[in-house]
Amino acid sequence: MAAGMAVTLIALPGLPRVRAGDDVAALIGAACARENVRLADGDVVAIAQKIVSKAEGRTVDLKTVTPSARAREIAARVGKDARLVEVILAESNRVVREAPNVLIVEHRLGFVMANAGVDQSNVGQSNVEGADMALLLPGDPDESARRLKTDLEARAGAKLGVVVTDSFGRPWRNGVVGVALGAAGIPALLDKRGTPDLFGRPLRVTEIALADEIAAAASLLMGAADEGIPVVILRGLALAGSEKPARALIRDPALDLFR
Amino acid sequence: MAAGMAVTLIALPGLPRVRAGDDVAALIGAACARENVRLADGDVVAIAQKIVSKAEGRTVDLKTVTPSARAREIAARVGKDARLVEVILAESNRVVREAPNVLIVEHRLGFVMANAGVDQSNVGQSNVEGADMALLLPGDPDESARRLKTDLEARAGAKLGVVVTDSFGRPWRNGVVGVALGAAGIPALLDKRGTPDLFGRPLRVTEIALADEIAAAASLLMGAADEGIPVVILRGLALAGSEKPARALIRDPALDLFR
Repeated sequence: MAAGMAVTLIALPGLPRVRAGDDVAALIGAACARENVRLADGDVVAIAQKIVSKAEGRTVDLKTVTPSARAREIAARVGKDARLVEVILAESNRVVREAPNVLIVEHRLGFVMANAGVDQSNVGQSNVEGADMALLLPGDPDESARRLKTDLEARAGAKLGVVVTDSFGRPWRNGVVGVALGAAGIPALLDKRGTPDLFGRPLRVTEIALADEIAAAASLLMGAADEGIPVVILRGLALAGSEKPARALIRDPALDLFR
Repeated sequence: MAAGMAVTLIALPGLPRVRAGDDVAALIGAACARENVRLADGDVVAIAQKIVSKAEGRTVDLKTVTPSARAREIAARVGKDARLVEVILAESNRVVREAPNVLIVEHRLGFVMANAGVDQSNVGQSNVEGADMALLLPGDPDESARRLKTDLEARAGAKLGVVVTDSFGRPWRNGVVGVALGAAGIPALLDKRGTPDLFGRPLRVTEIALADEIAAAASLLMGAADEGIPVVILRGLALAGSEKPARALIRDPALDLFR
């Protein structure tokens, strides 16, 4: 096999249950040491949003939430807990679609997604195993990725990329796929505009959502909802192009045919 | 590293330029032999739509196309070749969105995509290097995948999966990502409904678009428009679940909030 023609995805097992204040880079470093995985230049570390959010203390106890009149109205229409809807609305710019058991919003960071990414599954803690806990997305996932990159690089002594991943549903197609909420050290969006095709015509495809493809690849090993493997290392990617955060993946509303 | 915790993506270089009537499985078999890659049980072979379509002779010479009045009207509005628009409309159930240089349709197979997947880049042939050639999607990509699976398995003596891949743009997010047009031998859509989370609550995420994640992962090595590496082998995926074609990824319009 020719050199540079293979990419390896390495699932990193053995992370403990993450709690608020935990140092995720330290947990990853310890798991790498146990598994005899040595992070190397060019590795991209995909990290599930859920453990980043937990470490950042983004948990909300719904018992402390008083839903607004608007949240109660929407909750009644879609059939959700009004306190959860209140939390979702507080994380959102606007509601995009409502349907029974469905609430699609534009998250304050621009993501169009179900429930503003607020999750009630696998959010129990050692002393609070309640259904009343909800987990929000990180406050700034690109910043989370940058911080994790800095901390992981300091431990590994290697130049790394980091992608904070989640799973989104999509219009028109069934099933969720891995997507990038945050990215550092990689071109999250790779610009191929201007590159001619084999016959000199400008390419139809101009930009590649590289961080989303990385997240989707990592998701193959993570499992969509399994908290057991929240970290996957991608080794051997040849990522040319200038560094861009995951924020670059959010389409300017003025250019979006579907808003 | 624990056994079964790694997936390898192997790019298969060295495929010749594919022409109508070529045996893609034979070309892949020959390239595997040259590269010393032996296909093994459980390998999933991701194959770019473009070479499948070319082998199936899905090329249209636009010089032979007479655009309808409707095609001419749309072409004038969006600024495309009216003959190309005619070909796109013939492949489509309906137009979803029009804008300058943008024509998003529902393909007759249900895919919502730009230009019905009709491609003018890299479609030159040995004797016709013209900008007047267009390439359609395979007639039935799931059937193409099944046939390629049968032919590849006969050559390799191994149980394989096959995914026919393309790159789609998406609402709300910039950049294209790999998606599955056809699939065989894998659960293109993995049903996790009913699996409880770590605390016994039903999972929020219920179905995973596994074939799309495979296509996105393969796309990391293929490059979006580079015809040089149209085949990527995914080794080590542990794919539980019953076989489903890529057709299962297309959402029932009655259940789609965005139609």
